[in-house]
Amino acid sequence: MGILERINQPRDLRALNTLELKLLAQEIREEMIDVVSANGGHLAPNLGVVELTLALHRVFDSPIDKIIWDVGHQTYVHKLVTGRQKEFKSLRRHHGLSGFPKRAESPHDCFETGHSSTSISAAVGFAKARDLLQERSYVVAVIGDGAISGGMAYEALNHAGHGKTNLIVVLNDNEMAISPNVGAMSSYLSRLRTDPRYSRSKEEIEILLKRIPGIGNKVAKAAEKAKDSLKYLLVPGLWFEELGFTYLGPIDGHDQLLIEQTLELAKQRKGPVLVHVITKKGKGYPPAEKNPDIFHGVGPFNKETGEILKKSTIPTFTQVFGETLCRLGEANPKIVAITAAMAVGTGLNLFGKRFPDRFFDVGIAEQHAVTFASALAFGGMKPVVSIYSTFYQRAYDQVLHDVCLPKANVVLAIDRAGVVGDDGPTHHGVFDISILRVIPNLTFMAPKDENELQHMLYTALCQDGPVALRYPRSVGQGIPLDENLKELPIGKAEVLREGKDVALVGIGPMVYTCMAAAGELQSRGVEASVINLRFLNPLDKDTILRFARLTKRMVTIEDHMLAGGMGSAILETLADAGVTDVTVERLGYKDYVEQGSISLLHQENGLSVKGILGAVERLKVRQRLEGRNRG
Amino acid sequence: MGILERINQPRDLRALNTLELKLLAQEIREEMIDVVSANGGHLAPNLGVVELTLALHRVFDSPIDKIIWDVGHQTYVHKLVTGRQKEFKSLRRHHGLSGFPKRAESPHDCFETGHSSTSISAAVGFAKARDLLQERSYVVAVIGDGAISGGMAYEALNHAGHGKTNLIVVLNDNEMAISPNVGAMSSYLSRLRTDPRYSRSKEEIEILLKRIPGIGNKVAKAAEKAKDSLKYLLVPGLWFEELGFTYLGPIDGHDQLLIEQTLELAKQRKGPVLVHVITKKGKGYPPAEKNPDIFHGVGPFNKETGEILKKSTIPTFTQVFGETLCRLGEANPKIVAITAAMAVGTGLNLFGKRFPDRFFDVGIAEQHAVTFASALAFGGMKPVVSIYSTFYQRAYDQVLHDVCLPKANVVLAIDRAGVVGDDGPTHHGVFDISILRVIPNLTFMAPKDENELQHMLYTALCQDGPVALRYPRSVGQGIPLDENLKELPIGKAEVLREGKDVALVGIGPMVYTCMAAAGELQSRGVEASVINLRFLNPLDKDTILRFARLTKRMVTIEDHMLAGGMGSAILETLADAGVTDVTVERLGYKDYVEQGSISLLHQENGLSVKGILGAVERLKVRQRLEGRNRG
Repeated sequence: MGILERINQPRDLRALNTLELKLLAQEIREEMIDVVSANGGHLAPNLGVVELTLALHRVFDSPIDKIIWDVGHQTYVHKLVTGRQKEFKSLRRHHGLSGFPKRAESPHDCFETGHSSTSISAAVGFAKARDLLQERSYVVAVIGDGAISGGMAYEALNHAGHGKTNLIVVLNDNEMAISPNVGAMSSYLSRLRTDPRYSRSKEEIEILLKRIPGIGNKVAKAAEKAKDSLKYLLVPGLWFEELGFTYLGPIDGHDQLLIEQTLELAKQRKGPVLVHVITKKGKGYPPAEKNPDIFHGVGPFNKETGEILKKSTIPTFTQVFGETLCRLGEANPKIVAITAAMAVGTGLNLFGKRFPDRFFDVGIAEQHAVTFASALAFGGMKPVVSIYSTFYQRAYDQVLHDVCLPKANVVLAIDRAGVVGDDGPTHHGVFDISILRVIPNLTFMAPKDENELQHMLYTALCQDGPVALRYPRSVGQGIPLDENLKELPIGKAEVLREGKDVALVGIGPMVYTCMAAAGELQSRGVEASVINLRFLNPLDKDTILRFARLTKRMVTIEDHMLAGGMGSAILETLADAGVTDVTVERLGYKDYVEQGSISLLHQENGLSVKGILGAVERLKVRQRLEGRNRG
Repeated sequence: MGILERINQPRDLRALNTLELKLLAQEIREEMIDVVSANGGHLAPNLGVVELTLALHRVFDSPIDKIIWDVGHQTYVHKLVTGRQKEFKSLRRHHGLSGFPKRAESPHDCFETGHSSTSISAAVGFAKARDLLQERSYVVAVIGDGAISGGMAYEALNHAGHGKTNLIVVLNDNEMAISPNVGAMSSYLSRLRTDPRYSRSKEEIEILLKRIPGIGNKVAKAAEKAKDSLKYLLVPGLWFEELGFTYLGPIDGHDQLLIEQTLELAKQRKGPVLVHVITKKGKGYPPAEKNPDIFHGVGPFNKETGEILKKSTIPTFTQVFGETLCRLGEANPKIVAITAAMAVGTGLNLFGKRFPDRFFDVGIAEQHAVTFASALAFGGMKPVVSIYSTFYQRAYDQVLHDVCLPKANVVLAIDRAGVVGDDGPTHHGVFDISILRVIPNLTFMAPKDENELQHMLYTALCQDGPVALRYPRSVGQGIPLDENLKELPIGKAEVLREGKDVALVGIGPMVYTCMAAAGELQSRGVEASVINLRFLNPLDKDTILRFARLTKRMVTIEDHMLAGGMGSAILETLADAGVTDVTVERLGYKDYVEQGSISLLHQENGLSVKGILGAVERLKVRQRLEGRNRG
């Protein structure tokens, strides 16, 4: 029987001796490699926090003490030692364990995360609630060096550092978030890590000073004062100290005893404390140590060799986007590309390699990325910002206020639009249509396949004013890419098929589902029109109205929420034109979508041939009922 | 002829001597007091930046050099010296000069602002564009000490500080944003201001050190190095220095010569420079110096006495909200209130006075405010966050991801929902319905008047899970407030009037417009139903469908954008129920709304009795036409 099997709750960790802890760390790494090699997941970040997690759960008493994991994809170790070993094999599977903290899963998951940089805000909230309720507990946020570059982390540091509230921020510094880190904060942390003088804790320095005969105590006392000069001279982590935090570190994040000692020290401190821990992403699994970016979030792989199991040779939308942008960048030196810490994920790494001067990775900083792009445009460039749909939610105001109101020539590439699969509800990109189609001045389109994507990107770059372009995570349709890029007519839908009985209106790859359904309908004697809407703004009202009047029945299908989505825009078009005798069935999501494979989620939510056939049936039933009501 | 009249462009400032500059500053202050006392506006911030603005326009060569004003409400002086004196009397009036920078107004307004904390991002954008295009110019961002607490300012500092790009950030430190500032950054700046040792520039220190015989030069050289200890000892502004900026200051922001000298110094520096300038809000106008918060954004006032001209004795929605929350806070010690630097604006100052421990002003940090509230809720409290509708756009992801997905018991008070008047398009709250009604789990309501507001706030606090409550900037209806608060049935609309010919569906105070229109329609022989929708989520589908079927004609009216708004939700309801023979006219906004008085903007956009009557006429015409088409 392994040691891990004996750990049913975090308290069981306390009984272990040093050797057992080392063996446990080993077992945990093996278990994680095992499961993630089969299910995919965030391997490297979890391999990096094994000792840190064990230390946290030995020093603190969860769930009374609150441990908040920023981003939350590094909670596999946490899940394994908080009573979820048996379910661990279901990690990231449909109806299985989430790859992120979930309150419904365990009382030890006190705060749900997924998007970056929220943990310090959460820690301040728990700490203030504790103080107001006069409870006794510790509150700990664990945040990476990438996540701490997000603006809201700073907002929270600013709030926490101002008060006297006790809380601990563990800065898990692995020298990279997903892509290697960028920015001044990253350089600063790197200086802290590498300056040998800094590798001492504040306590050590105080002890050192106290040993100097005569002046020792006095100096040590003075060093306590915030504005004392000697502090500037001797205390590392001044940036954090100036924000009101006590800084401890940097310490080796794989020396479990040292982490535990430092955390104990942090517990005794009054006010906010920052513990700077250096970890190695991928620690203990050579392929992941060597390629931490590839093993950050990874699909199934061969655990012996570390070889990633390729599923498809068809290029993804992202790849075609990246390659097309390179091609266009060659011809137009004004094109610049911007990513928020997702160079590889967005396919912009290609552009970055080819045009390093015209490529900007701004770190986890979506707000800055978008406003920065706006000014680049007004400064004469043609910026393309690529951000995942779910992370555009972080930059909504910047799109609305800084790009679209002043009509900046910015192309907003919305990658990972639609459900994204195993990452689940925090990461699905199913809100962008509703929130972006209401913004004036924004041309907004979505390609049905990778060939249309390249033409749309070209079209977007030919326009004046802001353009958004949404496309999914998936592979394309495997169709050939046209040699010559062409400008698509703005605001014009594509009619793929004409039939008098029902009109199927789709956006993105759902158009192919419509085509398949139309074929099936034909075999049942129903003649369907298929419209590739292409533009969410401006809408092709003429085409919508023409087919509404022709067929009297419409099915709309979108990989997106129903409320305010594409189908809703079509209903508005019909109502505004006073077209009333048309029944419309809308297919899309009604609620937050769970985790699961993309195709499974589509099936479950009726975004499928079967779903369309069902909708067509319902339309018939409805029209009969309505006819009866009218009569 | 005054000096101001001779200034047609910034270059004209260069010819002035010291005395003339002093007189000019005086004239500018008088002109601003004159116009703002009549039109209302942001007086105190502009009085504080007279010398700074003149200095900037003498040292830099706008529009070749780019000056970006964070928030932008402090650009009156800038407007007066960049050729807009004649139009200045139209400031903030409908079709008049904007109270913010507008590219359409002048080439000197290189970047449009309105919301806080965007200027450094914009400066980085302009600077990078300049470098790529190999142009020669200076780029300057002017940001307040309040705005620099916003997360995206930090994201931008992080980016700017990393590179070697030349740009200048002028930190306009007036010791308060709108409410007195909060947070660790504010304390830090305060230490910089008050420590006499800090009141020397880095250059001065270098010169000083060089004077020490023997070691001088050596030490000065060492001080240049980033990690040199003496720097920690002697150089102020280390927080900024650690982020890669050269820090100059703090300097007196009303000593124009000193500002100019320091800016010249900044111009000569390579890389990013931060110039810390101390100004006094309201400078030169005693009432504003005394009450800078009242004169921050102010309505018309008596310029001799500084007395604010009260328009109405009817309480605003905000006041009733603030008072009701105090009342509820008395009964329930778990209620806590959170504002993002708008204690007075949101009416939460009352709660803050009464319950200082349960009140949190987190500074300009909307993202943090919302996630902080979520954790307060999970920690056992009942938080109420009040943020203006337009600023919720900054916290959209936090609402979606941190509050609604995990179903936190947070009340989101959405103040200033609908058009807000003279502040114009950057500040109107006309997007919240579209972006919030798509979020699952969120109960979302809006009261027709101040009495309903108090019941809704009570109702919201009785619920489990997230609740949003939107209400406008305006005064209430002047109706009496019920003594006893009652829980309104969730998801139930209020039917105010039943009539068979048309159903008028309104939300918020637009319901009163519906009632007035119904009266007018009656006198014309049309019997109208009036429905106060109350809930945007969950929708009262039964009531909507009942009146749709009864009347066959609906008019929806909302102080909000049309795309995806309340009317759109009603169309979805009809379509989902298969109800087709109903014509619907939707009243709301189609585009960004300009500045102007609220009632004028309502009139212009058909949100009026006249607008409703017109819509009813159009419905009749449409139904006739459709009937013909069908026949």
